[in-house]
Amino acid sequence: MRFDSDYTEGCIDKIQKALARTNLDQTVGYGMDEHCERARDIIRRLCVCPDADVQFLVGGTQANLTLITAALRPHQGVLAAVTGHVNVHESGAIEATGHKVLPLPERQGKLSADDVRGALAAHFSDPHAEHTVQPGLVYLSEPTECGTVYSADELRAISAVCRQYQVYLYIDGARLGYAMAACPEITFHLLAEVADAFYIGGTKVGALFGEAMVITHPALKKDFRYILKQRGGMLAKGRLLGLQFECLLEDDTYLSIARHAVAEAQRIRQAGLERGWKLYADSPTNQQFFIVPNDQLAVLARKYSYDIWETLPDDQTAIRFCTSWATQPAQVDALIEDIRSL
Amino acid sequence: MRFDSDYTEGCIDKIQKALARTNLDQTVGYGMDEHCERARDIIRRLCVCPDADVQFLVGGTQANLTLITAALRPHQGVLAAVTGHVNVHESGAIEATGHKVLPLPERQGKLSADDVRGALAAHFSDPHAEHTVQPGLVYLSEPTECGTVYSADELRAISAVCRQYQVYLYIDGARLGYAMAACPEITFHLLAEVADAFYIGGTKVGALFGEAMVITHPALKKDFRYILKQRGGMLAKGRLLGLQFECLLEDDTYLSIARHAVAEAQRIRQAGLERGWKLYADSPTNQQFFIVPNDQLAVLARKYSYDIWETLPDDQTAIRFCTSWATQPAQVDALIEDIRSL
Amino acid sequence: MRFDSDYTEGCIDKIQKALARTNLDQTVGYGMDEHCERARDIIRRLCVCPDADVQFLVGGTQANLTLITAALRPHQGVLAAVTGHVNVHESGAIEATGHKVLPLPERQGKLSADDVRGALAAHFSDPHAEHTVQPGLVYLSEPTECGTVYSADELRAISAVCRQYQVYLYIDGARLGYAMAACPEITFHLLAEVADAFYIGGTKVGALFGEAMVITHPALKKDFRYILKQRGGMLAKGRLLGLQFECLLEDDTYLSIARHAVAEAQRIRQAGLERGWKLYADSPTNQQFFIVPNDQLAVLARKYSYDIWETLPDDQTAIRFCTSWATQPAQVDALIEDIRSL
Amino acid sequence: MRFDSDYTEGCIDKIQKALARTNLDQTVGYGMDEHCERARDIIRRLCVCPDADVQFLVGGTQANLTLITAALRPHQGVLAAVTGHVNVHESGAIEATGHKVLPLPERQGKLSADDVRGALAAHFSDPHAEHTVQPGLVYLSEPTECGTVYSADELRAISAVCRQYQVYLYIDGARLGYAMAACPEITFHLLAEVADAFYIGGTKVGALFGEAMVITHPALKKDFRYILKQRGGMLAKGRLLGLQFECLLEDDTYLSIARHAVAEAQRIRQAGLERGWKLYADSPTNQQFFIVPNDQLAVLARKYSYDIWETLPDDQTAIRFCTSWATQPAQVDALIEDIRSL
Repeated sequence: MRFDSDYTEGCIDKIQKALARTNLDQTVGYGMDEHCERARDIIRRLCVCPDADVQFLVGGTQANLTLITAALRPHQGVLAAVTGHVNVHESGAIEATGHKVLPLPERQGKLSADDVRGALAAHFSDPHAEHTVQPGLVYLSEPTECGTVYSADELRAISAVCRQYQVYLYIDGARLGYAMAACPEITFHLLAEVADAFYIGGTKVGALFGEAMVITHPALKKDFRYILKQRGGMLAKGRLLGLQFECLLEDDTYLSIARHAVAEAQRIRQAGLERGWKLYADSPTNQQFFIVPNDQLAVLARKYSYDIWETLPDDQTAIRFCTSWATQPAQVDALIEDIRSL
Repeated sequence: MRFDSDYTEGCIDKIQKALARTNLDQTVGYGMDEHCERARDIIRRLCVCPDADVQFLVGGTQANLTLITAALRPHQGVLAAVTGHVNVHESGAIEATGHKVLPLPERQGKLSADDVRGALAAHFSDPHAEHTVQPGLVYLSEPTECGTVYSADELRAISAVCRQYQVYLYIDGARLGYAMAACPEITFHLLAEVADAFYIGGTKVGALFGEAMVITHPALKKDFRYILKQRGGMLAKGRLLGLQFECLLEDDTYLSIARHAVAEAQRIRQAGLERGWKLYADSPTNQQFFIVPNDQLAVLARKYSYDIWETLPDDQTAIRFCTSWATQPAQVDALIEDIRSL
Repeated sequence: MRFDSDYTEGCIDKIQKALARTNLDQTVGYGMDEHCERARDIIRRLCVCPDADVQFLVGGTQANLTLITAALRPHQGVLAAVTGHVNVHESGAIEATGHKVLPLPERQGKLSADDVRGALAAHFSDPHAEHTVQPGLVYLSEPTECGTVYSADELRAISAVCRQYQVYLYIDGARLGYAMAACPEITFHLLAEVADAFYIGGTKVGALFGEAMVITHPALKKDFRYILKQRGGMLAKGRLLGLQFECLLEDDTYLSIARHAVAEAQRIRQAGLERGWKLYADSPTNQQFFIVPNDQLAVLARKYSYDIWETLPDDQTAIRFCTSWATQPAQVDALIEDIRSL
Repeated sequence: MRFDSDYTEGCIDKIQKALARTNLDQTVGYGMDEHCERARDIIRRLCVCPDADVQFLVGGTQANLTLITAALRPHQGVLAAVTGHVNVHESGAIEATGHKVLPLPERQGKLSADDVRGALAAHFSDPHAEHTVQPGLVYLSEPTECGTVYSADELRAISAVCRQYQVYLYIDGARLGYAMAACPEITFHLLAEVADAFYIGGTKVGALFGEAMVITHPALKKDFRYILKQRGGMLAKGRLLGLQFECLLEDDTYLSIARHAVAEAQRIRQAGLERGWKLYADSPTNQQFFIVPNDQLAVLARKYSYDIWETLPDDQTAIRFCTSWATQPAQVDALIEDIRSL
């Protein structure tokens, strides 16, 4: 049984059926079709942002590199947590577009507004600034790479700092639904208010694939589709993306499947804590990180897959369990049972 | 009725069913699953090339930019027909990876071995060569952007020139099936012999999306997947790509749907010629290019969509009709009838 | 005797002496010293443009790639004559910054306002424009690579087109002095009016090395020095550049040495025409291009070096003679004598 | 009096005279002249490396970015000390070529062989390596940015690790002469043995400008000059670089001027220690770093310029004094006197 990621299965049944139903419809390509238009309208309404530009991409690395390259001038870089996905798990995708990722300290995967302010203040007051990389954009993930969630106040504080210094705030929402399910104050509307751009993750939250980029800052909207095409992110049959986001967002689907995943994850969390495992990160979302003795891991590995996060001293390992929309309660029951009997 | 492109519909029924059937299977991500492995094996067998590396990408621009950036050193460029897709319709994707496209003359969309040899000989004998871009790769499309097909001998001649000068030969097979259907001497085996890398197009030949990159040159295989990830081309649920190519290639499907499209296209060709239209390009494949008086176009436009290729003098326009696996004979019947009665 | 380029010697005596005189002065680095400031003031005054930003670079390719990368967004390219230096003789420097050079036809090395307008109108009215490269800047050289000179009216016409379409006009002035010497209507003031940025060439007009970039468009000034540093173009001992431009521009020096070179070149032109050679390009400046029978060339090659421009049919070759500030009349006398007696 | 950098003056008298003497000589351009050839021969002899390729560049950032872009494939990055010049003081020049700088911990500005081995071992044993940047080159500076010197054994240990993992070792020798003057075991021969490429700094050690890149690894030699031209680093009057390195290296000049600078720096060091200042870094070379109370700094600032390195707590500042070939003992006498009487 796989708990190693939230993309081990295909998609929710509703999407599967919609794809089958519309398969022989004829539409124009490249995201200009009626499904994409309807999905855009739904997203603009959910964001309470009628002027937002919404473009669909297939995957997260592509979404990040396309938005960042569209946003920055050549001498600018990205402030990100040292653990941020763009800094460590995208094979240098951002640098390949010419821009340095400027790492900042993290606590439980999160940036603080103070650290962001400090970095910006230091750069813009440095008499030798032009010998260094100018921060042009702050990148953060909601939820973070280790499952923690920025509160609304934390996001507003970082946003205020960015606006003070006129740098963009961009939010990677690969697992956005799980943050919204865990913390009701996190809403599409909030993200549209605090960020200049963010994406709503589909791949890890019920879709076969797909991310919806929401752009609220006018300068980022201009000519974005040229860059989308140039970086290989413009899907020929773009309607496949629009259709999936229609399915996810036209009603409560997105949030309700995320709530399911979070509830199952919290059951695993409880079992781990009862087993005496320490939390590697304190996550209210669908990813659970534990520090586990290697001999216990060896037993679990016979039946379950999980993600190895970090090898630790004293014969311990930090691991990650993921749940998703597809996780069946019976699978979690079995896992919990086996954790108890270790 | 749409004849403007070969990606107006979804995918063949067989793929639709396979996606539904495997939807809840759990697999690893990033193209390391069993579907991808099986598809790789099938492709290696069809290519008679057991050592080929096969990697799957979502779209053609992404395939082109990823292979080319993996192949070239920074001072090298791409020799391509001036009408080549990489030169004109990818929003500068190749230049965005740092490499110049060096345009060569074309005849009916095709390069000649002589022109390629001439360009290579000129560069490598130029005493000031280091002030210019060194050709490092020859790019061609089979079939070409205007539907024509390189013969086996033409491909072998260009390949021989490339090997003489030690530059790579890369073939864009976005519509490869249609060339194979039109000209039986064009086979996977032939392409694996003449090219250092080529891709088998799925998006335009029956798949929802997907291109299979076949790499035969050892230097191009090394670390290709790093670059695939870096450029945003590594699909999380990679199995979606493997599964589709299994469906297309495990039996005669790929070729048989291409034959259908080509047959329907040839019926349109015949009707156009009988109507007295001149051919803009003489295509044996699924794309048909005609020079049509604008008043006749105005009539057709009421019922059909087609692609406007070039505005010409004397109130004429070059247009393209595309057929595909999804084209229904009744649609073509209707179009032919309307062409006749113009 | 060398007539193959205008950079075979060092620098004018005045610069040599100034370098010696100031050698042990202590100054700050990176172009913030008093020599650079004085040179900036002189240039702003000559340009009648008190708000111009002036930055100094060592060479022309560096100047071109730095300005262009500072000016363009990632999806934009450079409209240039197919013979433009950035298109053919910079080893792909522009593409290495990510931007395509979009070649336009040339006549005697020159772009026409009509061709520029045509290209801009075609792009901005194309419904599929986002699949192609958006022109963002027009590049031209004054004088051109083959020695011809745009008239003031020609420059104004191209400038007007650029402003209509809101693309930048950038002028490569590697040999600007020679255009000014040949055509009095070409002035610093004119260039500052028509262009958004241009550079005043020093390397080929009396300096040891150095080009002065004059930026008049506010958007191009912003953070230009970051990019100058990033691309390796910020000289540590920047004063060496400022000092040289002080020497060249504080009085009539720049123009007067250029006039000398042009006068000597015109004597060579006259001798070539009398000899019966055809002009390859009709140049009023310091470069002279002739079509010469190969047997005559063989004789000349014993005593003189020249630049081979193009191998032609019928045993002829297009060659270039260059003069410069350093050309001695006696050298030209000798060359003329030998041309006459061929 | 300026002690803020080692590039406040022009060049040594010998170079000044040689420039004047050869000013009107005619030579070919782009580093193919006889001065460059002679300088290459001298350097190959000093390196005991007859096959080395030697190319001349104007400045250090240009040297670093050109070599690194020539060395790496697109998915590779540079391992460097977090304080390394390429990581912090080149405005993102390396990232602008597409490559990430992977920071490693430093002690007194130096990398350890253990940390390099650890990073390489971790990457090449990581099953998810292809989602991260592959280290392709180790960058270090000799002496380091804070004046410390790697011993011969330290260099050999790092070199051995690099060869084990087949990554390049590249050494930035902007101030190489000062390391050689301080530590006789550091020689050109040693650097040619341990490194795949390194550069001999001229700008900060007696030249007007110029760095000599020495390439010993065959794969790095191939087509290096194309990339030199492409990145704007090929000087038209290349002889200016060759001539300067002839002057510096044909006899003991390079080392003897460096010894002078180091001796003067050590006098300042002694004075600072006697004054009770703590060393910020323990440097045996021409840069001296002290932690100085701000009230004392205020006094010094009236007569001397120095470089502010870091603002520290408790009203203290880390500062740098630099000496050079041009530093006059009387200047140092005055500074020492004033330090004593603070």
